[in-house]
Amino acid sequence: MKDLWEFSVKDYIKEDNYKNGTLFNLANGYMGMRGYNEFSLYNNPGNYIAGIFDRSTAQVTELVNLPNPLLMNIYVNGQKIDLDINNVIDYQRSLDMGNGILKEAFIVEVQKGLRVQIESERFVSRKNFHRWACRYSVTALDSEALFVFESIIDGGTVNSGHNPKELSAHYKVSSVQDLKPGVMMVAITNDKKIEIAQASCIILKEKKFSRLKFNDLQCRVQQAGDVIAAKGETIVVYKFGAVYSSRESSNASTDCKREIEAFIADGYEAELEKHSELWQGFWNSSDIKIQGNEEAQKALRFNIFHLSSCAYDKDPTVSIGAKGLHGEGYKGHVFWDTETFMLPFFIYTQPQVAKALLMYRYNTLDGARRNAFMNGFSGAQYAWESADDGLETTPKWGYDYNNKPVRIWTGDIEVHISSDIVFSIFEYYRATEDKDFMFKYGSEIIFEVCRFWTGRAVYNKNKDIWEINSVIGPDEFHEHVDNNFYTNYLVKWTFSKALELREKMKNEYPLELNRIENYLCLTEKDYAIWKNISDKILINKQKETDIIEQFEGYFDLKEYEITSVDENGMPQWPKGLNLSELNSTKLIKQPDVVMLMLMMPQEFSEQELKANYEYYEKRTMHKSSLSPSMYSIMGMKVGDTHNAFSYFMKCINTDIKDNQGNSLLGLHAASSAGAWQTAVYGFGGFSIDSQDRACFSPWLAPDLQSIEFSVVYKNSRIKVFYDHEKVVITSERDMQVKVYSEVILLKSGIECEVRINK
Amino acid sequence: MKDLWEFSVKDYIKEDNYKNGTLFNLANGYMGMRGYNEFSLYNNPGNYIAGIFDRSTAQVTELVNLPNPLLMNIYVNGQKIDLDINNVIDYQRSLDMGNGILKEAFIVEVQKGLRVQIESERFVSRKNFHRWACRYSVTALDSEALFVFESIIDGGTVNSGHNPKELSAHYKVSSVQDLKPGVMMVAITNDKKIEIAQASCIILKEKKFSRLKFNDLQCRVQQAGDVIAAKGETIVVYKFGAVYSSRESSNASTDCKREIEAFIADGYEAELEKHSELWQGFWNSSDIKIQGNEEAQKALRFNIFHLSSCAYDKDPTVSIGAKGLHGEGYKGHVFWDTETFMLPFFIYTQPQVAKALLMYRYNTLDGARRNAFMNGFSGAQYAWESADDGLETTPKWGYDYNNKPVRIWTGDIEVHISSDIVFSIFEYYRATEDKDFMFKYGSEIIFEVCRFWTGRAVYNKNKDIWEINSVIGPDEFHEHVDNNFYTNYLVKWTFSKALELREKMKNEYPLELNRIENYLCLTEKDYAIWKNISDKILINKQKETDIIEQFEGYFDLKEYEITSVDENGMPQWPKGLNLSELNSTKLIKQPDVVMLMLMMPQEFSEQELKANYEYYEKRTMHKSSLSPSMYSIMGMKVGDTHNAFSYFMKCINTDIKDNQGNSLLGLHAASSAGAWQTAVYGFGGFSIDSQDRACFSPWLAPDLQSIEFSVVYKNSRIKVFYDHEKVVITSERDMQVKVYSEVILLKSGIECEVRINK
Repeated sequence: MKDLWEFSVKDYIKEDNYKNGTLFNLANGYMGMRGYNEFSLYNNPGNYIAGIFDRSTAQVTELVNLPNPLLMNIYVNGQKIDLDINNVIDYQRSLDMGNGILKEAFIVEVQKGLRVQIESERFVSRKNFHRWACRYSVTALDSEALFVFESIIDGGTVNSGHNPKELSAHYKVSSVQDLKPGVMMVAITNDKKIEIAQASCIILKEKKFSRLKFNDLQCRVQQAGDVIAAKGETIVVYKFGAVYSSRESSNASTDCKREIEAFIADGYEAELEKHSELWQGFWNSSDIKIQGNEEAQKALRFNIFHLSSCAYDKDPTVSIGAKGLHGEGYKGHVFWDTETFMLPFFIYTQPQVAKALLMYRYNTLDGARRNAFMNGFSGAQYAWESADDGLETTPKWGYDYNNKPVRIWTGDIEVHISSDIVFSIFEYYRATEDKDFMFKYGSEIIFEVCRFWTGRAVYNKNKDIWEINSVIGPDEFHEHVDNNFYTNYLVKWTFSKALELREKMKNEYPLELNRIENYLCLTEKDYAIWKNISDKILINKQKETDIIEQFEGYFDLKEYEITSVDENGMPQWPKGLNLSELNSTKLIKQPDVVMLMLMMPQEFSEQELKANYEYYEKRTMHKSSLSPSMYSIMGMKVGDTHNAFSYFMKCINTDIKDNQGNSLLGLHAASSAGAWQTAVYGFGGFSIDSQDRACFSPWLAPDLQSIEFSVVYKNSRIKVFYDHEKVVITSERDMQVKVYSEVILLKSGIECEVRINK
Repeated sequence: MKDLWEFSVKDYIKEDNYKNGTLFNLANGYMGMRGYNEFSLYNNPGNYIAGIFDRSTAQVTELVNLPNPLLMNIYVNGQKIDLDINNVIDYQRSLDMGNGILKEAFIVEVQKGLRVQIESERFVSRKNFHRWACRYSVTALDSEALFVFESIIDGGTVNSGHNPKELSAHYKVSSVQDLKPGVMMVAITNDKKIEIAQASCIILKEKKFSRLKFNDLQCRVQQAGDVIAAKGETIVVYKFGAVYSSRESSNASTDCKREIEAFIADGYEAELEKHSELWQGFWNSSDIKIQGNEEAQKALRFNIFHLSSCAYDKDPTVSIGAKGLHGEGYKGHVFWDTETFMLPFFIYTQPQVAKALLMYRYNTLDGARRNAFMNGFSGAQYAWESADDGLETTPKWGYDYNNKPVRIWTGDIEVHISSDIVFSIFEYYRATEDKDFMFKYGSEIIFEVCRFWTGRAVYNKNKDIWEINSVIGPDEFHEHVDNNFYTNYLVKWTFSKALELREKMKNEYPLELNRIENYLCLTEKDYAIWKNISDKILINKQKETDIIEQFEGYFDLKEYEITSVDENGMPQWPKGLNLSELNSTKLIKQPDVVMLMLMMPQEFSEQELKANYEYYEKRTMHKSSLSPSMYSIMGMKVGDTHNAFSYFMKCINTDIKDNQGNSLLGLHAASSAGAWQTAVYGFGGFSIDSQDRACFSPWLAPDLQSIEFSVVYKNSRIKVFYDHEKVVITSERDMQVKVYSEVILLKSGIECEVRINK
């Protein structure tokens, strides 16, 4: 029986090393290490610590590609083992997702009569976040051999290394040290002088190296040891690693040294065991089991594995970039992707992590205030792209689909993000009832965002409406549009929820409200304006038809029909279309109106959902990896399931099949989240109704036989199983839920079965 | 007609990149640059400045592998051109020996429909020694394309990079600078703080880059520029380079900057033209033309090209290491190879260079004095392996043929080198009559060496002989031998010549003699001892037979017969031989007795030459690349020519065919010199008789039709042509010479023909 917990490649192809760096990335929320292949010169290495950014000479601040400690040259009888030079006889590389371990195994023929078998493991500890390690088991199959192990920390890494026009250096190596044994390198980032101390040490199992050598190569540091192996004898080398930075430590190199010493004392297997236990614990509560399609099962686990690797609950000053901790794409910046796409996963499986992610927004509120201030507004304007401090970090220019330089406007005018964050706060609060968070932190964010909208919206005296003009909505093909439905509706909702919140706080948390009102200078006058805007902001609902105009003037744009798809099943540009005129067509990049409807379906009728879904889906180019999963879910919701499964399969394979062609730049983290959402919201039919009840209306593609998943809601884990015939549902705590239209009172721990009428 | 001035490879094989680094090395005596291939990740780069050594953590001081300025990444439409990744359609790499230019030309298919043609040139200027340059002509064959050129100086080079057990770093990068445009890096060696400033600058011909980017990557510095090319348009990029060091400059970085600015102003083609003119001038005077075997012609020129690249006449503080300026082998140390094998080439083609090489020995005389002092002797004991200061730098241990660690004794007891140097001084003086050198510098060396021998030889009272015990002769298979014939004979000759010299100076240069006698504290008593040793030193000539015992007890050693040769035609170890017992067999590594006889044939009868040649040649393993050529020459001298041509072919192909298996470590410089000697001394039959007359007794293998060469003797260039039927000889100045047994009086510029009687 094939292992459904393993994602693997069975052939070595050097051109795949770049995307495999992403697919085989390991992370624990504190740090990420790309799947660097030690036995090839062809790699794009990446080692990151969440929150460490630097700009220097780059266009915008970037998640720093730190020194790479994963280099390990293994020589046999003086020849370096190199998969691109040696004859590779047997090869497999695999991710043990259940235990969080990356493995590689192969046999190479270095020359005639000299075959070497290598099995390697690597993990980034989920137990002790500053630790990572590798284990190499090396066997000379044909005769006695001399092995030399050369372990290196390479302090010559850069960002955008494969693009000389963008290449940037972000740190200087300030010192290297012999740890006796082991090596340590301290690097200091250029702008903010953040110190990063990295240590590594190779130690033989049960034997000693004949000799250990330390080399200070200024921007590289290495430890080399040699050992003679008998024919057939397996030499096991442990490589211990530790990382500390001045973000969390006042003496990073001391702490790093202490950490690696403690790690060596604890031992590799002990740490691996604790790490694996935590992974198994995570899967016990958050796995999604699918029967009927093994590829889907593995790929779904792959996405969940990688997404959950991106964050942890210990640092409220960092969040998840669009490419996870998996690559340099988008410079590690945080987008609306995090709140809109990824937060639900964390809210409903690991709420503590969700809280930390939202605290990042609280802790960058001053940056958002500065953005507003620099744009002439009061309140807080969250950055479209955010890094360490919340200041706007979107580049002002880039390259369009024709590779021509083009001004980027998202940082200036894709303003909906501020309310996406508000939405996410309420979703978190609804699921967790975390009053401490909401009333100390969430509320301040919400009120500041309201203060921003008050300036950003303009009152149209003639029509007695409020308008928000010159924006970009979720669909980025169209810029400088007026009264984008998504934005305006979300703003309306923001004010409405803010006023509710204020009422609640007046009654239940008057002291906290008083503090905020004093701090933000809020008066009744402000609240009156909020109400006014909420009531009178322009919402483009039509009376005659259910179809909502995405923004003013959308319906007058040029129609283009999408008639063909590419080899990945994604729409191809219609013939005759000039890409520089996208702005004047009805083609959209990803769901916009439909996105809003997905976020708050209860605000619309079934007809409206269906009509807008049908209208916009066939005009969507899916040029964002976020797109297919959203349509999949909405399709299931409105009963148009013909794309549901195929969009699900595309979504879960985004990086596995590299169907955007750029997986080498990092994980499509929002797409990974979309995979979870499609399974849970779509197949699992999970939603929350207007009475704050968890509802489950599963729908499964005929291709799939059953699905089983859990969500954490109101501090209770609810487990759901569905197989076309019945829904079996259990809740940790007593809870009222809905299964399809039936309201059910679940008793703590008692399984309840609902049979489906056909 | 094939180009006999070109050495080329017509296929790209990445495994050959390492030895090709040697074969395609360019040097000018000041610096050497290995044939690094910009379009592959597989290289062992090497960039050296003669005289820059460093020890740091290495076993002994090493010629420093300086930062590598040759990196040039070329990207087309975002993809890096890489011969190991792209589809290589057409390929050739060649050395234009006539003009001193390295060229590479190929077409690669980067992807379907994207072919790029690249033609590159590189030269290290023979005109301005601090300059080197490249020119890249790049054409996108199929469509318009965006090219990015990324030129890098890599300050992360190390010595012994491919052997982690020996790997050593010898410098730190102290600064990088933007030359606006261009880049400069300053590195400082660890021990002696020698500064090396290297600059490079890429400039487009007739166009400008769209944009230039400078990146300070701490241990690397780079300049990148992009340019759009039309389909079929050839983009030409010049890469200018300059180097300066604190050995010759008090402000290396200022001089380097000035140099590259001047170079750019002069222009690439102008420098190349002057450089080529000098190369052509060299060949006009020093070429050897062979008819009848094109392989032999090209290979002979290859050896002469590389040997003459190793030295120039501007620096009397450096000499030629065993591996030339071509690699790290033997750490760049200077051996007897230089005086015994290479000096003749320079004496008889470029005497100014020979003088500089001998001045190195004068300028390291203090080091030799220190060696003697530390060994308990007076006078000067030249180092077996010498680097920058003349101190002994032979490692004390290494690895034997079984890869086991073994004590190396050559540095302790291979003492003949001091007299090899004396021999070379006299050979130089005999050829040039350079009294200035001999009486100011040479004499001091010679007398100091005599003072050393006085202590190193011991008087055996019982036998009333002087002995030199516990030495190693040229044959290094035997250690701690007594009264090695080569050593003793050379010492006898040294004293004899020194006493002659003293007489001459007493009469002609009394002031100089007085200075030396005061300085070295020489008295009549010393001279008496010198005479005594010269008369009574033990020389192992037998009365009964002509065969000379190589050292005391040699005849009693175990006999082993060499019965087979390997694929390179070199002897294989006899069956049953235990390599650790070589010391107790009669097998020898290279000529020892025969070597002495080659150096001073006039001291022996024809019978003695022939008998010892026959006796020792069949016991020689030729484990030194110096060996075959010496036997070839002696063979021709004694009339045993059956090996002459085959040994010649092996010798000239030592590096071309990598027949020692280690050409990746550098040029076998003495073997290259042996190639010249075999052609000139062997085929050309050139020698000097006891009356100091130039004699020519050519012998040509039947495989060859004719030979033409020149030697500079007593300030006159003598040109010789031979074709089995006649010798045609011309001298610049009036001179008496011998052709075979005939004495001829040549008139200046008048050709003289001597027909051969058959």
